[in-house]
Amino acid sequence: MMESGIKFGYNEKGCQDFIRRIEGSRPIFVCVIATTETARIPGLSAAGAMPELTDYTPAADVELLFYGRCRCIEGVPVTPDGIPTPALITMSALRLSNIPYFVLNGGAKVLPKVPFFEVGGSPGKDIRSGCAVENSEEVYERSSIIGRQLSRAADYLVVGESIPGGTTTALAVLLAMGVDAKLKVSSSMPNNPHDLKLRVVEAAFEAAGISYGSLERAPFKAISLVGDPMMPAAAGLIAGAAEEVPVIMAGGTQMCAVLKLLQSISPEVLGNLAIGTTRWILEDKTSDIRELVSKVAPVPLLAADLDFSASKYRGLRAYELGVAKEGVGAGGASIAAMLSSRGTVTRASLLKDIEDSYSMLIDSASH
Amino acid sequence: MMESGIKFGYNEKGCQDFIRRIEGSRPIFVCVIATTETARIPGLSAAGAMPELTDYTPAADVELLFYGRCRCIEGVPVTPDGIPTPALITMSALRLSNIPYFVLNGGAKVLPKVPFFEVGGSPGKDIRSGCAVENSEEVYERSSIIGRQLSRAADYLVVGESIPGGTTTALAVLLAMGVDAKLKVSSSMPNNPHDLKLRVVEAAFEAAGISYGSLERAPFKAISLVGDPMMPAAAGLIAGAAEEVPVIMAGGTQMCAVLKLLQSISPEVLGNLAIGTTRWILEDKTSDIRELVSKVAPVPLLAADLDFSASKYRGLRAYELGVAKEGVGAGGASIAAMLSSRGTVTRASLLKDIEDSYSMLIDSASH
Repeated sequence: MMESGIKFGYNEKGCQDFIRRIEGSRPIFVCVIATTETARIPGLSAAGAMPELTDYTPAADVELLFYGRCRCIEGVPVTPDGIPTPALITMSALRLSNIPYFVLNGGAKVLPKVPFFEVGGSPGKDIRSGCAVENSEEVYERSSIIGRQLSRAADYLVVGESIPGGTTTALAVLLAMGVDAKLKVSSSMPNNPHDLKLRVVEAAFEAAGISYGSLERAPFKAISLVGDPMMPAAAGLIAGAAEEVPVIMAGGTQMCAVLKLLQSISPEVLGNLAIGTTRWILEDKTSDIRELVSKVAPVPLLAADLDFSASKYRGLRAYELGVAKEGVGAGGASIAAMLSSRGTVTRASLLKDIEDSYSMLIDSASH
Repeated sequence: MMESGIKFGYNEKGCQDFIRRIEGSRPIFVCVIATTETARIPGLSAAGAMPELTDYTPAADVELLFYGRCRCIEGVPVTPDGIPTPALITMSALRLSNIPYFVLNGGAKVLPKVPFFEVGGSPGKDIRSGCAVENSEEVYERSSIIGRQLSRAADYLVVGESIPGGTTTALAVLLAMGVDAKLKVSSSMPNNPHDLKLRVVEAAFEAAGISYGSLERAPFKAISLVGDPMMPAAAGLIAGAAEEVPVIMAGGTQMCAVLKLLQSISPEVLGNLAIGTTRWILEDKTSDIRELVSKVAPVPLLAADLDFSASKYRGLRAYELGVAKEGVGAGGASIAAMLSSRGTVTRASLLKDIEDSYSMLIDSASH
């Protein structure tokens, strides 16, 4: 019954086993934030109405989680069409289930006005420089310490991300490590700009002097040359926790890049991992998360069966048209909320709370 | 039986009740770090062999907790006589009991090479400027969010501190808020420099234009004018957690200043608080923590009954002569280790582990 709000995307048996392990137990949620200059390439990301705004999106997302409103910007992060951030979903999921949550700064240019874990990261450069991320091994190590400590205080972890432009850097890392991810990464826009992403990745590969698969055994080099600062932080956090407890990697195709990194850096933890995303990612025609997961490692792929088609708000119904889809761990947080609440948080109660938040934010923006 | 390692310093009934509430349950430990220019006043602090070194002490202390060695300095923090930091005690207590632990940066000039919570604080100025701490309300608010989140993942919190020169700023805040703390704050040196501390506080009061008791109802002003950056961070963290769970304020007379702030800012949480320190503070002839606690608020005062008099190492026996005494939450961490382990961590096993660590660190320093 409780699983009626959760779809199985890949490895059905693994999904069932994973759910059995975590059902009714107590998670901690962590959102890893970062920004890059890659996200400012026009047309690449919808995570800000204008490219410069992408620097504010992760900070604004996590401020929303803690305060129910943003402090570093007016209103909430929206796509160019005015569709609101999936942080709204995460906020409702965490609030309804009373799951404790934290922020980890992988390297954000605009720092949120909330408390966060600092691990010594910096904002990412444009990957077309061939030199994208500083200090990735140290960031991984320090993040793994956080994961290890949190795993002693929680039954499992849920790790989300907010990083604009993240599917392009995910594509670059997957290709550099020999995973054929062409046309398979998702987008926060209904028209996935695959051509543009590939051109950016090709320019990055040329600048870095690498080619398809040439960094298969060099995960940190892949991050440093063509990745983003979310990756070492999320990978370290997940690896540190998954030494002891299950971890839901809460995200879409970006988490496939993190999974590939973990398969290379820390393969012994794969048995404790699942990817948790949204139905909109699972059903997206412009990307293929199932194929990516199956190519990287056969971990369970879960999806929160959220449905906004009957919502009274256009901004939420737009999710059904392929806008936004996932982010800030929305899918994984929804899954954890339903599983940890022993049935009191449902698809219906989630939708109601999301609509209430949405209407409140619209009201406060119009005054 | 288990309580044989714990002494009751004040409010015996409260101590027994508090222990009953937390015995056998699962804490999280947080160490709040900060530095000030006050600590550089010659003769004030023993937390560094030379005044400039006090900037490194908090970072080195928490590096020791995570790595079993320091990274920002060679060796470990020592007093001018070469007596090692109480972080050694904390390290053993946390390791033996497997208690999860975190660091919160209240405002440290030298940042540790470990992960830590960031709350927007800055290092403290010399209080003789009459303008010691920036941003104290925001730091309090952000720290309270951390406390609230951690309280959902732990049965209780243990909050320690590492800030050189902290008893002088504690004296200043206590006097500003009308608590007669003269000759009552402790010192990390056997000869407590009370006269020097009072002269510094008098200069601070003159610069700030305040007098004894004039800030009784202005806790944030007391911090901002003559306090230190540990205070708003620790007070916020403790208040946020104590809304829901018990909190051990792990420290000596500095925690009495934090308690006074909490009594003013957030009196509704006092019933969830205890101070946890060491026997060396409780028995110190140059200070009077019992008197301070009784003047501020009748919370339970617990002390870890540690005894190094039979240690084979001079550096540890020196604790019996009044060197170091407390810091980095050593007393509170030891109490929590004994109570949470259901009897497997004892005074004896703690002493053995501390001696082992000490000998290992001496060995590695001499190679």
